Amino acid sequence: MTSQTPAAMPDVQAMDDRRKIAIDKVGVKAVTYPIILRTPEGGAQTTVANINMYVSLPHCQKGTHMSRFLEVLNEHNSEPVHPEDIPTIARVIKERLEAEDAYLELEFTYFIRKQAPVTKMSGLMDYRVTFAVHSNSHDDFVMGVRAPATSLCPCSKEISDRGAHNQRCEIEARVRFKGSLWIEDLARMIEKSASTEVFAVLKRPDEKFVTEQAYDNPKFVEDIVRDLAMRLDADERILQYTITSENFESIHNHSAYAQISRDKRSPGGA
Amino acid sequence: MTSQTPAAMPDVQAMDDRRKIAIDKVGVKAVTYPIILRTPEGGAQTTVANINMYVSLPHCQKGTHMSRFLEVLNEHNSEPVHPEDIPTIARVIKERLEAEDAYLELEFTYFIRKQAPVTKMSGLMDYRVTFAVHSNSHDDFVMGVRAPATSLCPCSKEISDRGAHNQRCEIEARVRFKGSLWIEDLARMIEKSASTEVFAVLKRPDEKFVTEQAYDNPKFVEDIVRDLAMRLDADERILQYTITSENFESIHNHSAYAQISRDKRSPGGA
Amino acid sequence: MTSQTPAAMPDVQAMDDRRKIAIDKVGVKAVTYPIILRTPEGGAQTTVANINMYVSLPHCQKGTHMSRFLEVLNEHNSEPVHPEDIPTIARVIKERLEAEDAYLELEFTYFIRKQAPVTKMSGLMDYRVTFAVHSNSHDDFVMGVRAPATSLCPCSKEISDRGAHNQRCEIEARVRFKGSLWIEDLARMIEKSASTEVFAVLKRPDEKFVTEQAYDNPKFVEDIVRDLAMRLDADERILQYTITSENFESIHNHSAYAQISRDKRSPGGA
Amino acid sequence: MTSQTPAAMPDVQAMDDRRKIAIDKVGVKAVTYPIILRTPEGGAQTTVANINMYVSLPHCQKGTHMSRFLEVLNEHNSEPVHPEDIPTIARVIKERLEAEDAYLELEFTYFIRKQAPVTKMSGLMDYRVTFAVHSNSHDDFVMGVRAPATSLCPCSKEISDRGAHNQRCEIEARVRFKGSLWIEDLARMIEKSASTEVFAVLKRPDEKFVTEQAYDNPKFVEDIVRDLAMRLDADERILQYTITSENFESIHNHSAYAQISRDKRSPGGA
Repeated sequence: MTSQTPAAMPDVQAMDDRRKIAIDKVGVKAVTYPIILRTPEGGAQTTVANINMYVSLPHCQKGTHMSRFLEVLNEHNSEPVHPEDIPTIARVIKERLEAEDAYLELEFTYFIRKQAPVTKMSGLMDYRVTFAVHSNSHDDFVMGVRAPATSLCPCSKEISDRGAHNQRCEIEARVRFKGSLWIEDLARMIEKSASTEVFAVLKRPDEKFVTEQAYDNPKFVEDIVRDLAMRLDADERILQYTITSENFESIHNHSAYAQISRDKRSPGGA
Repeated sequence: MTSQTPAAMPDVQAMDDRRKIAIDKVGVKAVTYPIILRTPEGGAQTTVANINMYVSLPHCQKGTHMSRFLEVLNEHNSEPVHPEDIPTIARVIKERLEAEDAYLELEFTYFIRKQAPVTKMSGLMDYRVTFAVHSNSHDDFVMGVRAPATSLCPCSKEISDRGAHNQRCEIEARVRFKGSLWIEDLARMIEKSASTEVFAVLKRPDEKFVTEQAYDNPKFVEDIVRDLAMRLDADERILQYTITSENFESIHNHSAYAQISRDKRSPGGA
Repeated sequence: MTSQTPAAMPDVQAMDDRRKIAIDKVGVKAVTYPIILRTPEGGAQTTVANINMYVSLPHCQKGTHMSRFLEVLNEHNSEPVHPEDIPTIARVIKERLEAEDAYLELEFTYFIRKQAPVTKMSGLMDYRVTFAVHSNSHDDFVMGVRAPATSLCPCSKEISDRGAHNQRCEIEARVRFKGSLWIEDLARMIEKSASTEVFAVLKRPDEKFVTEQAYDNPKFVEDIVRDLAMRLDADERILQYTITSENFESIHNHSAYAQISRDKRSPGGA
Repeated sequence: MTSQTPAAMPDVQAMDDRRKIAIDKVGVKAVTYPIILRTPEGGAQTTVANINMYVSLPHCQKGTHMSRFLEVLNEHNSEPVHPEDIPTIARVIKERLEAEDAYLELEFTYFIRKQAPVTKMSGLMDYRVTFAVHSNSHDDFVMGVRAPATSLCPCSKEISDRGAHNQRCEIEARVRFKGSLWIEDLARMIEKSASTEVFAVLKRPDEKFVTEQAYDNPKFVEDIVRDLAMRLDADERILQYTITSENFESIHNHSAYAQISRDKRSPGGA
C-alpha cells in the first residue's frame, strides 16, 4: 500500500446531502461473477451469474460505498449455496453498507441432466434462473425458473386436415415459497404444463415420441399458464406466483404471450 | 376467399373453459411495426416500434382472438400520433377484444435534432421511448424516455491530482402526467441532470466545452437521480415518476446504478 | 462560435505517427440514425439504421477525424435512397476523410406489405436488411436480407404417425449483384424456399392454409439453403451469395443451421 | 424403448439428394453447455459456453445427423480442457459425422483473479473468450480474448484546460499461434495496451491510481490497436492476428472503433 492511505483521503460519499431526497436503490448493476449452487444429489454446480446489488440511501447521505458490494461478493462466492442461503447474503450487504434495505438479484444458467423419453440417452438442458431478495426488517425472496418447451396450437390442429403449427416456447414461474424448493422442482412443474418437453439429445424414436405427444396434447398459450397455475395452486410450498409463457409462433414473426399472478396468502389474491 | 369461410370453421378460442382460472394478460408480444409520431414543430417522425398488446381473459373463456390485435394495429399506424393519443388505441383494443382490461406497450427510437454547444453544428440524437397503457374503467398511462449523457465521478476528481474518471450513462424517467408533455420536454429535464450532455457531432471547440463542463460538474449516480427528482418535483404536470441512472463505469466492467420512485398524488408517496 | 476556433487548437489527430503500423479500419460504430429508402411502388419508407463507417489509415498518420463521418451522414439522410445509391455515400466518406478505403455498413428493419394467403387481409411484415460497401479503387457492395419463415421437419413427419415438429426459422441471403435488385426481390426468393411463409395477420382460413402447406412441404435446414441456392443460381443478376438458415427447433433449446457460399464469377466458385 | 427401434425407422437424412449442391456448413447453433478449462495454476474453471458445431455435406447426401453433435459434446464436457485440446474435439466431430470438414466454435466468460493496483485487494475480472476451429486435412485454430479496459482521449486532454473524456472500451485479439498460449497471456497483452486497466474492486487509493494513470497515458482508439499490434508482433508464438478496439465514447451515443489484421507468415501479410 502507498503512503497515502484511504484515511488520508476525503470520503466524498460520506458527506452530508442537503437535497432532502432519499434514494430507493443505489449500488452496482450487471456484475458478472461465478457462483456455485448445491444440487439435490448432494453435489455442486458452478455457473456464471449476472448480479445486481443495491441498498437504500437516507436523504442526508451523499453517496454509498460501491466497493463494499464487491467485497461481500468476494467473500461469498467460494462455497456452494442453496436457494435458501441467498437471503443471508442480502442481510450481509445490509449490514456492511449500514442500510435499511438491501436488494440482491442474480440471473444465471442452470443445467439439469435429462434423459430422452424413449432411448433414455442423457444430456444437459439449460434453464435460466433468477433469485431476487429484498431484505429490510424481514426478507422477501422470489425464485424464478424459465424453461424452454414445445407448444402445439389447438386451433391449427382442429381446422387443418393434417399437421398443426407448433413452436418452442419459454415458460417462466417466479414464486415466493416456504420450506425447501429446488430449481429442479419448479422446472418439472413448468415442463409438464406444455404440449411436450424439449431435450438436448433426441434419437429418432425419441423424436417420434415428442412429435406425437405434442400432437396429442395441443395447448394455447392460455392453456399452458392455466395448467401451470393449477400445479402451483396444488403445491403447499408455493405462497405466491407470477407465471408467463411466450410462444415463438412458427406462423408469425411475433410471440403469443400469457401471464397469471396469484397470491395464495390473501383472499382475493393477485 | 375460399368456399371454406371462417364461419364454417370451429372457433376453438370461443369454447368454454372449466379450470376456473382467469388470465391477467394474454395477447401478442414483440410485434415489430412502424409508427408515426407528431413532433412539437408540427411535423411528423416515422420510427420502428416493438409492441406488446394484451387483454385480460375471464375464467370461463378458453382463448382470446390473437389476430384482432394486429387488425387494430393495422388500422392505427398510418396517421401521426401524439403521446396523448396512445390511450385511445388501448381502448379500441379493449372494445374489439370485448375485454375488461387492455394493455398496450410500445418501445421505439426517437430522434431529436440537437446543436453542438459551441459550433452549433446540428445532428440527430437517438433516445429510447416507451409508452405503457393499462385501460379498464379508466386509463393509466406511463411515458418513459431514456437518454444517454455523461457522468464524471466527484470522488475520483477529489482524490486525484489530475483528471477524473467519466463515462456514458443512461438516464431514464418513466412518468405519469397531466396535460401535455412532449418527449422533448422529458429528454431536456434528463439531460440537464447529468455532468454534461452527449451529442451526435462535436468539433474540437465543442469537445473542449463538454470536457470542461463535465469536469466542473462532477456527479455521482446518486446526484443524477436526485437532481432529476428535483426537476420532476418542480414540474406540475408530473404526477408520479420512477427514475433511474445506469453509469457504465470506465474503471470497472460493471455499472453504478440508482433509482428513485415518487407519487406526488399521495402524502407519503412512493 | 467562440473566439477560440478550431484553427487555434492543436490538431492531435493530424500528427505524425512513428510506429509504422497502418490501420485497416478506423471510424465510428453503432451510430443510430434514420434513413429513407425508395420503394418499388415509387414511394419512400423511413426506418432506423444501425450504422458503422470506417476508413483505412496510413501508417504515418496518428488519427482519423471522427466528426467528419457524422457530417457525411447528416448530409445524406434527408432524401430517399435506393440500394444502388449506397456505394455513392461510401465514396463521399473516402473523399472527405482523404482515405484510400472507406467502409459503410447499415442494418435496419424494412417493412413489406403482404396479404394473407386466403382472406387476403393485409399487414406489414418486418425484415432485417444489411448494406455493406467497401470502396477503394472500385466499389464492392453486398446487400443482405434476413426473413422469417416456417420450416417443418421431414424426418419428424416420416417417422411419426401424426403431426410433425415445425418452427420459425430465419433465412438470410447476402448477395453481390449487377443491375437493379430490390429488397422485395430477395425477400420473395427467400420466402419461397421455406416450408411456408409467415404473415403479420392470419384469420382461420389462412391458418388452415399455412398449416397444411407446411405439412405438405417438409424441409430440412439443408433443403432450405439448397432450394434458395437454386433460385439464386437461376437469377442472372446475382453474382455471388452467402445464404444461411437458422431453424429455432421446437423440440430442442438450440438451432439447426446451414450455410452455402458461391461465387458464380469464378469456375470453382466459393 | 418402444418396439419401433431406430433400425426400423426410415433414415431420411441418409437419402440421396439430386440437386447437386454441396453445403459448406450444417449443424447445430447456439447450444448452451458447461465446459471446464485448465488454468495456468494447475486448477480448473467451470463456465457456460455458447457452442456451434458444423460439418460440410457433400452434394449427394440429403441431410446430416444432428443428434451426433450433441453426443460428441456429452462425451467431452466432463474433463478440463486446455485451448490446445479444442482441435481434438473438432476432429472427433469430423469422424463421427463422416465429414470432410468440421467446425467448432465456443464463446464463454472466463474469470481471472486480479489485484487492485495499490491496496492489492483481490477480485475476479470477467473476459469473453472464443475458440474457433476448422478441421479438414489439417486444423486451423483461432483463439480470441475480449477484455474491458479504459481509454482516455489525447485530443480532449490537449485542447481542454482541465479534465479529459475517458470511457470503458472493449479490446479483442483473435490469434493463430504456435506452442502454448494461455487466455491469461493474451489478456495481459490486451490490458497493457489501453490507457489503464479496469478492476473488479477498487478502494480509494486504487481509484486515484487508475485515474491518474489514464490521464498520464492518453490513447486514441488508433493508439490502442497499434500498441497491441506491436506487442503481438514481438511475441514469436503469434502467427496471425485480428485486433479490434471499441470505445464506448462518453461524449457520444456511439463508439469509436479500430481494427488491424496481420499475417506474420506471409510477406505482405494481412
